[in-house]
Amino acid sequence: MDKIKQIQKKLVQKGIDAYIIPTADDHNSEYLCEYYKTRAFLSGFTGSAGTLVITPKKSFLWTDGRYHIQASKQLEGKNITLMKQGTNGVPTIEEFLASNLKENSTVAFEGKVMPTSFVLKLIEKIPNIKLNSDIDLVSDIWEDRPRLPFSFLYKLEEFFSGKSYKEKLNEIKQKLIEYQADVHILSSLEDQAWLYNLRANDIPHTPVFLAFTIIDQETCHLFIDPKKIDKIIEKYLKENEIVVHEYSDFYTYLSTIENKTILLDLNKANYSLYSILNNKNTLINKADPSLLLKAIKNKVEIDNTIHAHIKDGVAFTKWMYYVKTNIQEDSSLSELTVQSYLQKLRQAQESYVDISFDTICAYKDHGAMMHYSATTESNYTLEPNDFLLIDSGGHYLDGTTDITRTLALGNLTDMQKLHFTTVLKSVIALSEAVFLKGVKGLNLDILARGPIWKQLLDYKCGTGHGVGFLLSVHEAPNGFRWQIVPERNDSAEFVPGMITTNEPGIYLENKYGIRIENEMVCVPKGKSEFGEFLGFETITYAPIDLDAIDVNLLNAEEKNWLNQYHKKVFKLISPHLEADEVEWLKNYTREI
Amino acid sequence: MDKIKQIQKKLVQKGIDAYIIPTADDHNSEYLCEYYKTRAFLSGFTGSAGTLVITPKKSFLWTDGRYHIQASKQLEGKNITLMKQGTNGVPTIEEFLASNLKENSTVAFEGKVMPTSFVLKLIEKIPNIKLNSDIDLVSDIWEDRPRLPFSFLYKLEEFFSGKSYKEKLNEIKQKLIEYQADVHILSSLEDQAWLYNLRANDIPHTPVFLAFTIIDQETCHLFIDPKKIDKIIEKYLKENEIVVHEYSDFYTYLSTIENKTILLDLNKANYSLYSILNNKNTLINKADPSLLLKAIKNKVEIDNTIHAHIKDGVAFTKWMYYVKTNIQEDSSLSELTVQSYLQKLRQAQESYVDISFDTICAYKDHGAMMHYSATTESNYTLEPNDFLLIDSGGHYLDGTTDITRTLALGNLTDMQKLHFTTVLKSVIALSEAVFLKGVKGLNLDILARGPIWKQLLDYKCGTGHGVGFLLSVHEAPNGFRWQIVPERNDSAEFVPGMITTNEPGIYLENKYGIRIENEMVCVPKGKSEFGEFLGFETITYAPIDLDAIDVNLLNAEEKNWLNQYHKKVFKLISPHLEADEVEWLKNYTREI
Repeated sequence: MDKIKQIQKKLVQKGIDAYIIPTADDHNSEYLCEYYKTRAFLSGFTGSAGTLVITPKKSFLWTDGRYHIQASKQLEGKNITLMKQGTNGVPTIEEFLASNLKENSTVAFEGKVMPTSFVLKLIEKIPNIKLNSDIDLVSDIWEDRPRLPFSFLYKLEEFFSGKSYKEKLNEIKQKLIEYQADVHILSSLEDQAWLYNLRANDIPHTPVFLAFTIIDQETCHLFIDPKKIDKIIEKYLKENEIVVHEYSDFYTYLSTIENKTILLDLNKANYSLYSILNNKNTLINKADPSLLLKAIKNKVEIDNTIHAHIKDGVAFTKWMYYVKTNIQEDSSLSELTVQSYLQKLRQAQESYVDISFDTICAYKDHGAMMHYSATTESNYTLEPNDFLLIDSGGHYLDGTTDITRTLALGNLTDMQKLHFTTVLKSVIALSEAVFLKGVKGLNLDILARGPIWKQLLDYKCGTGHGVGFLLSVHEAPNGFRWQIVPERNDSAEFVPGMITTNEPGIYLENKYGIRIENEMVCVPKGKSEFGEFLGFETITYAPIDLDAIDVNLLNAEEKNWLNQYHKKVFKLISPHLEADEVEWLKNYTREI
Repeated sequence: MDKIKQIQKKLVQKGIDAYIIPTADDHNSEYLCEYYKTRAFLSGFTGSAGTLVITPKKSFLWTDGRYHIQASKQLEGKNITLMKQGTNGVPTIEEFLASNLKENSTVAFEGKVMPTSFVLKLIEKIPNIKLNSDIDLVSDIWEDRPRLPFSFLYKLEEFFSGKSYKEKLNEIKQKLIEYQADVHILSSLEDQAWLYNLRANDIPHTPVFLAFTIIDQETCHLFIDPKKIDKIIEKYLKENEIVVHEYSDFYTYLSTIENKTILLDLNKANYSLYSILNNKNTLINKADPSLLLKAIKNKVEIDNTIHAHIKDGVAFTKWMYYVKTNIQEDSSLSELTVQSYLQKLRQAQESYVDISFDTICAYKDHGAMMHYSATTESNYTLEPNDFLLIDSGGHYLDGTTDITRTLALGNLTDMQKLHFTTVLKSVIALSEAVFLKGVKGLNLDILARGPIWKQLLDYKCGTGHGVGFLLSVHEAPNGFRWQIVPERNDSAEFVPGMITTNEPGIYLENKYGIRIENEMVCVPKGKSEFGEFLGFETITYAPIDLDAIDVNLLNAEEKNWLNQYHKKVFKLISPHLEADEVEWLKNYTREI
């Protein structure tokens, strides 16, 4: 029997009117290990974001603009209605449930994988509905469900991280004092990896480990599978007086906490965790202090990240040279072959750890799917024409990269060049922003989106996201977007040291996709009687394909930006190339 | 005895720890008639915005960036501390009271002139403080206090307003049904003038009348001094079944309303009004429906406003010709003489009603005070050098205008030209914006502010405000500003038909001020698969002084915008000028 039908049968048996399956683990992670991919298991939709709602008769999948095309393909024939988040007239899940459920209906979900803030919003929106927050309907029908992941912890030395565990812990403890909180509970996997200066491989391409942390002024408790700890790490934890508990003991331990004032980020804490604590303690709902501490990279992290970007740029430039010089003759190039070649070039770089996310290598109309992932079925052979969009990145011990370039594989039409040049204008305008302290991505997004909107085009996603340091490639709380999306938490004020991507694009369904993506670090630009000014420094170094540009559409300032950028690319990348690659790069970074 | 000291004596007598004097009348109007100018009476600061807080020992004045320079001059030697709103580290009034008053302190004010939303915020911020909301300490010491204003109502015919009273009333009634409200109470003077298609002269340069309105599905009650109603208006009110009550009976009438669901905009309703209704009724706090209906101008209003701008542009162009051609020879020109000459030229235009606000005619360093008003003491004689900034506007039966130009009266320095050209770039960038429906001023402000921020300069005010139709020159809810200021209520989504000013500037204290201000109407720009796009059409027609521009700093798009704009100015304005003026205008709108 169809999986959704099996769930629906259970719904009827248990008198449940709607069952919600989010994309999350116990830690509200963006990327999941296989064990938690229940939404993908049930719906067949494999994107990194989406929520499935199953009622006894129907089912619905909400996902955002990055995945509208992919989801509609993957849901074909599945009898699941696609709810395009962010599109005019499409209700939110809460709105949908509010208008489709009768009073006293029952809404069920598994509380451990449900962010508390979402559940509280639900309760506010539909107060007359019964919640059953302890229902796992998936495990029973998922016979070969993967196990929880296992990987060994490893240390990130201080010459990479720039700050010791003790220093970071003290900063958090200071915040506890400021907030008058006794206890802090940290769910976020990235924040814990950052705090301990530890990494692992529990989640594909996100070097974290499943854990919970409880901090008070005396002790720091780490809940983790102790088998992941080898002798070296054991010694490190002991030296730092970190008390280790079994991961599976976390919820039991929680229930012993009473009469405390607890700092808890309800955007990250799951609903079961919240429910256990809520009645017996006073909760302070504020962002985890580590969120901002981690986002504002220190000097060592910034210098390291720049170094990582040079290595990444070398790999990318070698790859671009290879593709651009072979496309005319070599008919064996395909999305899959060139993407795996790029991975090899990255692997050859010093202190390489992993790719930082599944590569998007998308030729022609595949490029219009913002988060396309080539499979043996979908794989296109590359021809000497049209656009190849490649969005990829690497984790290195000295930082994480995320870069997109769109290559002209042959002659382009005027329209294609107009669109490419428009995206470039967008990138440049945002790169050159100068702004007063206090400004958010919300204020700046129009700089990137403006040139594209002038063509009556749009991209249905943010313009950029924060990037972690050997952590998640998507990191809160900085980003660029023109409307606040509360659950994305990416509309913070910019602070020097934050690293954010700049990646506008044009996506024409069934035609092509164009995206240019650079990372930028926020830097001071000077003070005056009018205040403190900030701006960005671009730290991604790879050619922007001159073959795709209509130079006549660029003004003098834009040409100057591109020339300066390409000059820097040549200077930083060419020393690490072979002679023929240097010649090629000289041409592809020439002044226009 | 000093007025503030007199108040302080009363505070001690009555056991009051802080007394708040806002800038408002019973209707939370922005501009006030003389009767309500208590804050100016007590402090000597005459700007249009500011709140005075007096404690037994000290006193403090909050005002926004437009008035920081003016207020610091007017408060000199007055022992009142200036609190520069919007400056880093300056607390809000609530924050200030919260951190400076002990528990159980008493805060007093006159509830009728206090916006409810402000008082509720105060209560939330300082819950342990006693409020005394019925204390008028000013009337006693203000011996020659002016009387409430008197002016006759006049009708705005439908070929001006584009919509009858009945149509407008029905739109409001529809909203009452939608909100499930029985009764709506309207305090805003502008909204009532709009609703009734009536105008008067109760407030200088804002053609409204003191009134309250109570609407239910059966009846519309108008509370007004009946002596303001002549035979013609009396007939009109009767024909429209509007029930007239004495203005002074309003609060007594209010207290008879019980067990109703009442739509009340707590940003506009005063605290006394709110207090009378609150316990005996259910209140729905939403923006007055008329706020948005009034802001979205209908086709007739837009066409009329454009016509008003042509007349206004003719007056302005004649004035600019006069100043620019006489400045070399005529040494009698001064801020006061040229500003009164401009007023005469406006008065000569068809269906002129009034100036729309006190003219800002500011030479040299006076220009740095954004809202300078020349007096016989401050009046500068004009010389053939430096900048003259003039911000002025007219009320006509067919609309309201607001225009600023900054004139080079002689040769400028390179720095002056750089600054002028930078402001022009700002104006152009915002004028050319194209954006998706849903965008707010918050998203677009950077377009205007960006070029100025790049010079590490800033202007400490919004970039633009809504403009009424023969109503207040500052009209909610549209505007441009990069941070939300809740009490300004000017961050609404743009809708075609809204009229907003575009007025970036550079203000260098003790040096000069530059502002260029055009009005723009929001217009559709086209639909595509990506959504519905909007933009702006500039409807202010007057030359932007070419003598002040460094052409080398403009790119091709910017030059093209300016040339197209000047072409349109010449086409629309020249038919109404004398021959020598036409010749001059031809030169001052020449292609660059």
